[in-house]
Order: sequence, then C-alpha cells, then structure tokens
Amino acid sequence: MKSDISQLMAERDLDAIVVYGSTDTSSDLAYLTGGAHLERAMYLHPKDGEPTLLASVLERENAEATGIATRLWNDFPLSRYMQDAGGDVMAAQLAQWRDIFSAYGVAGRVGFYGLADMGYAYRFLSALTQSLSDIQVVGETPPNLFATARETKDAREIAIMQAVGKATTEVIANVFDFLSGRRARGDVLIQSDGQPLTIGDVKAFIRLELVKRNLEETHENIFSQGRDAGVPHNAGRCDMPLRLGQTTIFDIFPRDRATGYFHDITRTFFLGYAPEHLVEKWLDVKRVFDEVMAEMRVGEPGGKFQKMTCDLFETLNYPTICSDPQTTVGYIHSLGHGVGLDVHEGPRLSTFGQQQPLKPGHVVSVEPGLYYPDEGWGVRIEDTIAFDEQGAIVNLSDFPYDMVIPITRS
Amino acid sequence: MKSDISQLMAERDLDAIVVYGSTDTSSDLAYLTGGAHLERAMYLHPKDGEPTLLASVLERENAEATGIATRLWNDFPLSRYMQDAGGDVMAAQLAQWRDIFSAYGVAGRVGFYGLADMGYAYRFLSALTQSLSDIQVVGETPPNLFATARETKDAREIAIMQAVGKATTEVIANVFDFLSGRRARGDVLIQSDGQPLTIGDVKAFIRLELVKRNLEETHENIFSQGRDAGVPHNAGRCDMPLRLGQTTIFDIFPRDRATGYFHDITRTFFLGYAPEHLVEKWLDVKRVFDEVMAEMRVGEPGGKFQKMTCDLFETLNYPTICSDPQTTVGYIHSLGHGVGLDVHEGPRLSTFGQQQPLKPGHVVSVEPGLYYPDEGWGVRIEDTIAFDEQGAIVNLSDFPYDMVIPITRS
Repeated sequence: MKSDISQLMAERDLDAIVVYGSTDTSSDLAYLTGGAHLERAMYLHPKDGEPTLLASVLERENAEATGIATRLWNDFPLSRYMQDAGGDVMAAQLAQWRDIFSAYGVAGRVGFYGLADMGYAYRFLSALTQSLSDIQVVGETPPNLFATARETKDAREIAIMQAVGKATTEVIANVFDFLSGRRARGDVLIQSDGQPLTIGDVKAFIRLELVKRNLEETHENIFSQGRDAGVPHNAGRCDMPLRLGQTTIFDIFPRDRATGYFHDITRTFFLGYAPEHLVEKWLDVKRVFDEVMAEMRVGEPGGKFQKMTCDLFETLNYPTICSDPQTTVGYIHSLGHGVGLDVHEGPRLSTFGQQQPLKPGHVVSVEPGLYYPDEGWGVRIEDTIAFDEQGAIVNLSDFPYDMVIPITRS
Repeated sequence: MKSDISQLMAERDLDAIVVYGSTDTSSDLAYLTGGAHLERAMYLHPKDGEPTLLASVLERENAEATGIATRLWNDFPLSRYMQDAGGDVMAAQLAQWRDIFSAYGVAGRVGFYGLADMGYAYRFLSALTQSLSDIQVVGETPPNLFATARETKDAREIAIMQAVGKATTEVIANVFDFLSGRRARGDVLIQSDGQPLTIGDVKAFIRLELVKRNLEETHENIFSQGRDAGVPHNAGRCDMPLRLGQTTIFDIFPRDRATGYFHDITRTFFLGYAPEHLVEKWLDVKRVFDEVMAEMRVGEPGGKFQKMTCDLFETLNYPTICSDPQTTVGYIHSLGHGVGLDVHEGPRLSTFGQQQPLKPGHVVSVEPGLYYPDEGWGVRIEDTIAFDEQGAIVNLSDFPYDMVIPITRS
C-alpha cells in the first residue's frame, strides 16, 4: 500500500527515491500521482522530507492537482544547461539533476525507478554514479519497492476495483445478449442483413460497450474461436465468421480511464451447442477452477496454487508446464497474476519468483486453461479475486459460467 | 527508416542490437514488430545475421505473424535457471541471457534498447558487463539509433499517417456538427432536455467517434475552455458546462489501433461569437502559424523555426520561452515535434537538441500558441505535416481553421 512506502524505503536502507518518466507508461509514477496525466515528470522523496514533483510548465496544473508539492523543470531550464555543456545532452542532464537533487535534499543511497530506455538508463546512471560523489545509485531486482507496495491494495483500491469489475461484467452481459439475439444459418452466425457475423463485428460492439463505461482497451481484448482459442494470446481474427459448436474464449482486461485500475476476466463458451468431446474438456477446466478457488486463501504462497493446478490437470492426464516447461499443449501458463494499475503485476501464482504468502489486500487472477490448437480448441476460465482485510475472498468478477449461449437456427 | 537500421548500426560500430520489453509501452519494439501484441519479448539482431524474436509460448503466433524468426523463452526456461541459481532472479536472468546471446551470435559491442525500470536496467546491465566478458554494453544518449531511424518515414508510413489524419479530421467535423446542432440559453450550451451540455458530454461523444474509426485515445484528449485553455495540457474539466464566447481548445492525438501511428491536430474556436479582444489574439496565433508554415522546408534545422516563431510573437509584444525560459504566459512551448509510433518523437522543432536539418520523410506537428490563464484564455493552432520524397509539404491535417462555430440562441 502507498502508506507502506516509508517502511519499504527503510527496509532497503534508502535515503531517497527518484521516479522518472511518463504516467502513461510508468505505472509506478501513476501510482504516486493518482491518475494525473504527466509526461516526463520526476518524483523525488528524501526519507526525511516531503515529496516533490517536477513537471513541465504545460502540465503544471495536472501536477498541482495531485496535492504533491510541484516544481517546474523550467526552474532548472535544460536550455541553460545545454548552453553551459556546449550542447552535450548527457552532461547537461547530469548538471540539471545534480542541481535538482541538491535543491530537494536527495543524497546518499538513492533508489531509481520508472521506465526508461534501458541502454540510456544504464549509461546515464553509470555517469551519475561517477559524477555525483554524494549519490549512490540503487537499482532493485524485481519485485522492487513499488511492486511490493502495489501488490497490497487498501480498502479504497479494492472498492475501485470492484466497481471496474462490475462495469466489465456489464459489458460481457451485453455481448452475450448481442450474440444470443442473432440467428444461425448452418453453423454460421448471421446478421440481420443475412451476412455472416464476424469476430471483427463482435470486437467493434465490445469497444462501444467499453467506451460507454469509460473503460479503455489498452491491449487488444481476446475474442477467439477454435484453433485460435488454442493459443492463449491469439486475439482472434477479425475476418472470421462466428461459428456454432466451437470453443470461444472471451478474455477481457479493460482499464478504467478515471482511476487507471484494470480488471481481468475470461469466459469460454460455445454458441448454439457444445460437441460432446469438448464438453468434457470444458468441464475439466471448470472442475480445476472450482477446486483451486475453493482452496485459495491467505497465508499460503502463490506457487502452491500453481502446483495444485498442475497436479489436478496431470491427474486428468493433461501435460503441464510444471512437468514439461517446453510443452505447447495442455496447461501451459501460470495460474494467475496480480491485477492493479498494470494488468499483470505481483503477486504471481507461479512456481517460482513468488515465495511470499498471499495476504489481505492482494488481488489476483485465477485462470486455469487447456490449449490444443491442432485439435481446434482451447478453454480458459478466469476470475479476478481480492482478499479483504480479514483475508476473505471477494470475487470481483461476479458473472455466471455458462457453457452454451443458445442460438436459434434460421 | 527501417531500412536504415543496418547503416545506423555500422555508424555506431555496433556488432548487435537487443530490444527488450512489451510492444504496448516500447514503441521501438513496436516499430520492429509492426503492430504485433507482445509482452516481455526480445529482439536480437547481430550485424552479420538474421534477427530473432524471443516470445512467450502464449504469444508464439503473434510473434510468428511478424515474419521474424521466432524462438520461445521456454526453450531457455527461466524456471530451470532459477533452480540452478538457487532462486536468485538476477543470476538466473544473467545465465539465461548469456545462453540466448551465445545461441544467436550476440557478442562484441551490443546496443541495448526498449523500456525497462531504470534502476533495474542499470543494475542488470552493470552485472551483464561484469559477468559476460564478450559483451560490451552500449547505451545511447538521445536521439538513439531507433529515434534516428523512426524520425524518417517511408512512403508506406506516410500513406498510413495520411489515412489516420483523415479519420481524425472526420471526428473533428462530426464534433463540430454535434456542437453547432445545439442551442444556447444565455451563454450556456444546452441539450435537448434543457440541461447544460458539459465538456464531459463532448468528450463522451468524441470517444464514440474515435472508437467507430478504430482510433485509440491513449492519452486524454484536450477539450478545454477559458482559463483551462490557458494551460496547454489541462485536458478540460468534465463537469464544466460549455459556454459561448470563450476560447475553446480542441487538441486531439489519437492512435490508429491497426497500425499504431498517431495523428496530432489542434483547433481553437469560439462557440457562438468571439469577443473583440480575443479575436485579435486568435488572429495573432493564426498569422504566426501561417507565416511559419509558409517558411517550413527541408534543409533547415528544426530550431530555426522555433526561433522564427519566438521572433514573430515577440514582435507582437508577447513574452516567449526563448527570451524568458521561465515564463508561464505568452508562447511557452516548442513549435512542434515529430509524430509517428509515439505522439512525441523526433525531430524536435525546439531551440536545442535538434541541430540536424529537416529531411524528406520527416513528419512534424506545427503548433504555435498563446496562453494567459489568469486572463481566461489560450489559443493554439496545430497541423501535422509530412515532407514527401521531393521535400514538398503534405499537410496530414486537412481541416479548415474556423474561428467561430455558429450557435442558435433559444
């Protein structure tokens, strides 16, 4: 939680933190600034002082609206530093940062965060280490201070995420109504004008439903059928007509424009009817989903639930990534991931990396799946759940798990 | 241009380049992979070999669709490296990258690109330098290899950007029709139910128009009135009713979902009528815009046009950032910026940084403006222009510059 940041700085023995970048790409900066739009901003926080936000004159009121003390880059004009440095960009920026750090008490062990070109970050921070003797650059391996703070949500964040989940499930409900209102000719869904209804048509409808609820599609949502459903991140081909009797994966992960929080939910269903051999697969995934959900609790490491999921699938005779890391069929990904200001963040429900126990305030997706593209099918079922302050599960994806959407044949 | 990359590598004496990250945030990776959705991917290109794209098993078909030879991370499973490294993330990743580099001929002077947490990039690449004796990490200061390649567009890119400009101006035309179809009560625009029409209502309409054309609003568009128009990046307050006789800045910079290219255009207008003292300001900006546009040409450095803009405004007795870098009123930003897969990229039309001459294939915004928030107004006029292969200007923002949108009073 944001209120943990001072404690997390102390645990890392940091004298200050610096977060640099744009809120559109750097979710750590967005976390600190609460949804303000800022491009090329810098957040400085010395452990014994108040934070300061450096912003462009163009964005001074966006910055001030955050409530953080705001200063302008123009008070340290790069044009002047460029002149002094004879046009050497790196030397100019080093001198500028030196003056800023000195003005706002940034010294000692300083943690640097925010997204930047990786080569430049290496070169610039190496030069900073060389040229500023009172700064010791600290770079963290994941999960860093912000990943750690962000993976635990406070009650306000969980309330926001519940609302985003509700808006998202409204979209799904309307998409299901949109689909069930069509007719089929043979195994192909058709529009009122008799033309086939394509995946592209459904995606266009989904986008309208999202925008009406102020939800953003930052990555293309997945609406895929048949063999495309068998490759987890195939988004679905827009020119493909929708067919009855195919596994249809609808995985939607919108971001709320107002708050920046994501939701993540997947349903797999069949239009019209489910072929017998695929009913069995769908039920296997649903069974694993239910068994894992029943076991999910705080106090256990996320990796335990990935192991459990693999064991359940292996008992059902499916290959898994646990026993064969290179398999491309069966269960081939981790059980889930944290959801927040990034659609994928900590904690991870995977075999490695996340040894810490799940805690109150964690919000994670739970998404077992099976994938057989060459057999023309894939099934994934996913909810995003939160653990409340008492550790009880709050399902943020409150939506039924229908296997079949009935369609009238014409 | 993409075809310049080998030459740009040679100029930098690079033996290989490595681009790491996600296509959603790292536009350099998006540039190389042409719109594929890839999370945590790596592009490797040794100077004497073919490029290779490392992707997740979940995204293997997205990766293959790029036409670049695709390999899976699972062929170098991090779980195995984690085991070998006793759970040390950094050691595991170093060993993994060592094996990948060795498998695909990456050695010598290697340029690293793509967005990453800046502290981690510093720490990881420092460790890489230490532990891989055959790799010399090269980080570039801006403009780096990709910024340089990307700022020159080929004919295909300019054709795409022209189409995005056309779709964007259709949105503006429809917004103008939407506004001129309303009536006013006193100085406030009203809806058919008699309630005031708010900026939020207009923004909702704009979003629907965008989504219908497969355009994304990756940053909040600007639709601001009065004093908010006086601070360039104030996006406009959704609860504010629209008023007649105010400067209204409509700055829209959507991204085409299919290709990833942005457009950027601004119109300033008055609803109903323009007060006399503001007509003069609007005409001053328009005059500067016209004079600068008439002078824009290849062969001159971008900074020259910023200087010209400052001189023109100073002649008209407005303060400018050129003579006072700390001014918050008058002309307070640069004349323009490159537009492409980022809304702000090279070349810059600013006093420093861009000493290189403008060239055929450059695409830049031209956007003089004046800002006086305490006097309750701001004016900006912006088009995005391309220089074609002959160096002639192609205006990608083909839309009239109306000062007043007529409104009927009820």
